[in-house]
Amino acid sequence: MKPLYDERLRRLRASTSAKKLDAFLVTDLKNIRYLTGFTGSNAYAVVSFDRAFFLTDPRYASQSADEVKGFRIRIFKKAVDEVVRAAQAVKAGVIGFESSSMSFDTHARLAKAFKGKARLKATAGLLKTLRSVKDPFEIEKITEAARLLDRGFTRAMKVAVAGAVEMDAAFSIESFWRRRGAEGLAFDTIIASGSRGALPHGKASEKKIKKGELIVVDMGVLLNGYNSDGTRTFVTGKPTAKQKEVYQVVREAQSAAIESIRPGVMASAVDRAARSVIGKAGYGKYFGHGTGHGVGLDIHEAPGLSPMSEDVLEEGMVVTVEPGIYIPGWGGVRIEDMVLVTKNGAKLLTSTTRDLVSL
Amino acid sequence: MKPLYDERLRRLRASTSAKKLDAFLVTDLKNIRYLTGFTGSNAYAVVSFDRAFFLTDPRYASQSADEVKGFRIRIFKKAVDEVVRAAQAVKAGVIGFESSSMSFDTHARLAKAFKGKARLKATAGLLKTLRSVKDPFEIEKITEAARLLDRGFTRAMKVAVAGAVEMDAAFSIESFWRRRGAEGLAFDTIIASGSRGALPHGKASEKKIKKGELIVVDMGVLLNGYNSDGTRTFVTGKPTAKQKEVYQVVREAQSAAIESIRPGVMASAVDRAARSVIGKAGYGKYFGHGTGHGVGLDIHEAPGLSPMSEDVLEEGMVVTVEPGIYIPGWGGVRIEDMVLVTKNGAKLLTSTTRDLVSL
Repeated sequence: MKPLYDERLRRLRASTSAKKLDAFLVTDLKNIRYLTGFTGSNAYAVVSFDRAFFLTDPRYASQSADEVKGFRIRIFKKAVDEVVRAAQAVKAGVIGFESSSMSFDTHARLAKAFKGKARLKATAGLLKTLRSVKDPFEIEKITEAARLLDRGFTRAMKVAVAGAVEMDAAFSIESFWRRRGAEGLAFDTIIASGSRGALPHGKASEKKIKKGELIVVDMGVLLNGYNSDGTRTFVTGKPTAKQKEVYQVVREAQSAAIESIRPGVMASAVDRAARSVIGKAGYGKYFGHGTGHGVGLDIHEAPGLSPMSEDVLEEGMVVTVEPGIYIPGWGGVRIEDMVLVTKNGAKLLTSTTRDLVSL
Repeated sequence: MKPLYDERLRRLRASTSAKKLDAFLVTDLKNIRYLTGFTGSNAYAVVSFDRAFFLTDPRYASQSADEVKGFRIRIFKKAVDEVVRAAQAVKAGVIGFESSSMSFDTHARLAKAFKGKARLKATAGLLKTLRSVKDPFEIEKITEAARLLDRGFTRAMKVAVAGAVEMDAAFSIESFWRRRGAEGLAFDTIIASGSRGALPHGKASEKKIKKGELIVVDMGVLLNGYNSDGTRTFVTGKPTAKQKEVYQVVREAQSAAIESIRPGVMASAVDRAARSVIGKAGYGKYFGHGTGHGVGLDIHEAPGLSPMSEDVLEEGMVVTVEPGIYIPGWGGVRIEDMVLVTKNGAKLLTSTTRDLVSL
């Protein structure tokens, strides 16, 4: 399967036109990759209703010729000058730019160069919205990354055991992934055992895992440019009644959230589905984060599954569902899966068992 | 040895006052780490001539209490509101901000919140200049990262041999580093053998290294927050006359550059020293990048050792010296070391042999 760059460009043009922009300037490198296929570190794109320019520096002349599809490639000495030239070539009067990622200084330089020629208009979130709905190529790649994540959990069950140092277990999983073609980690692996499980960012540490502890393993792998993200909480030895109880509440909260997912549902309603299960069980104050987020070229994308989110679920979105309970001094439980929003509801992309596994 | 946060704050205040600012708002996370010791992912600092505030969100309440030295810590719900409160607490009229990294949208939000209260002033490069001169703690940490890099080159000589796949060799070196406490790579390891050596960004690929090839190995390791960066070019088997000749030119260019280094010298003059050796040997058009750059918390920092640089070397700067010759279709040679600028000239921080090693 190949990325449908033509379709992506068509959707961008529809959004650009809906915003009454004559052209759109793309500067975020993940957005550049999404639109053009380019994986280098310095590029711009200028898209109008009928033309599309890709701009990069001489170092990337041959790489861009290989990678970039459907754009006219221009090699620049000074980026700003070439952006102005491309905008003038398409006779743009109003040009949208990515105001949430462009720096103040870059904007100032562009505004100066465009003075008397065209107007720059702050336009946040346009590609973010487009990218939140994945196309078949992306779903295939994300599914592959999720499968490799599952194999990492199988390995975690062997190495994140009593007596092991958290960092060593994390490194063992990472090595396994790298040998299978991963480009890297989606984020620093979290292995948080015992009371560390209550930390919101329990990056694998030099702590040794002990008998009788819960172990929160939250990790993800980057494969062919796409991220995966999942969490399992294991226990070393026989779980206590409280460990079982807290685990069961999180599991039910996650199931409720997953079951609430379908196109047209508010993302905040999915969060509420998880939150109300945890709240009713009396653990509401121990669930201090959102229920999930989109995943794709970035590890955190739209939509956000949180109480304040105004996003609405659409078919083709890929999101995490990851409620948790964190009790200071005691530990934590989080269960996280990746799901694809289909017209029939959520389809799980991760498949590691959600039963409490004792290592 | 401990970081001298008081001294760093004192230097920042001297710069802030020289720029006629009442206060300075720090938003770049590496700059935050430099000033406060904080390693988390969401924080701001507001520094006036007599007070210093550190602002973060509730997730980092306990981590900031552990890490942050010499600042009053404020936990925020809304960052912008707390930045305004801190600025008002120090009665700031004009507040400098980091305009090269702050986004257009963040600036717009802050400008709105400060309206009628204080004026924001774009101030690029202030911390960049301070950070270009390293203190003894930083020199110690950078030296440790450089030593671990040297051990990586020893390993490279064993694994980047004829018959090995570039990516496998890179992974073997990375694993070695991780087992010795590295947090990660300074950048994706470059192992570019044969004609790939002519690529400016020859990330280790699935290519197999062959007999009779030059192999450019450019890599670095992140240790305790500090980066290292070095390059060696090896040869598999007995070098040809041309391989020896090109190597010798690059080596002489690098020596000339290193010898030209001392406090007060223009960074562009160091570039010129390398460039003129390569030019005189007739390879000028095959050396298309700058001669070096500063290294520290970031892999690329000030000063820049390039023809257009206006930086002047100072005692305590740490820079790479990395001339190269890249002949399309034939291959490349680059030799790169890290040096500390001392009052007596350059002190090498990397110690791997610069003789052409045959593997």
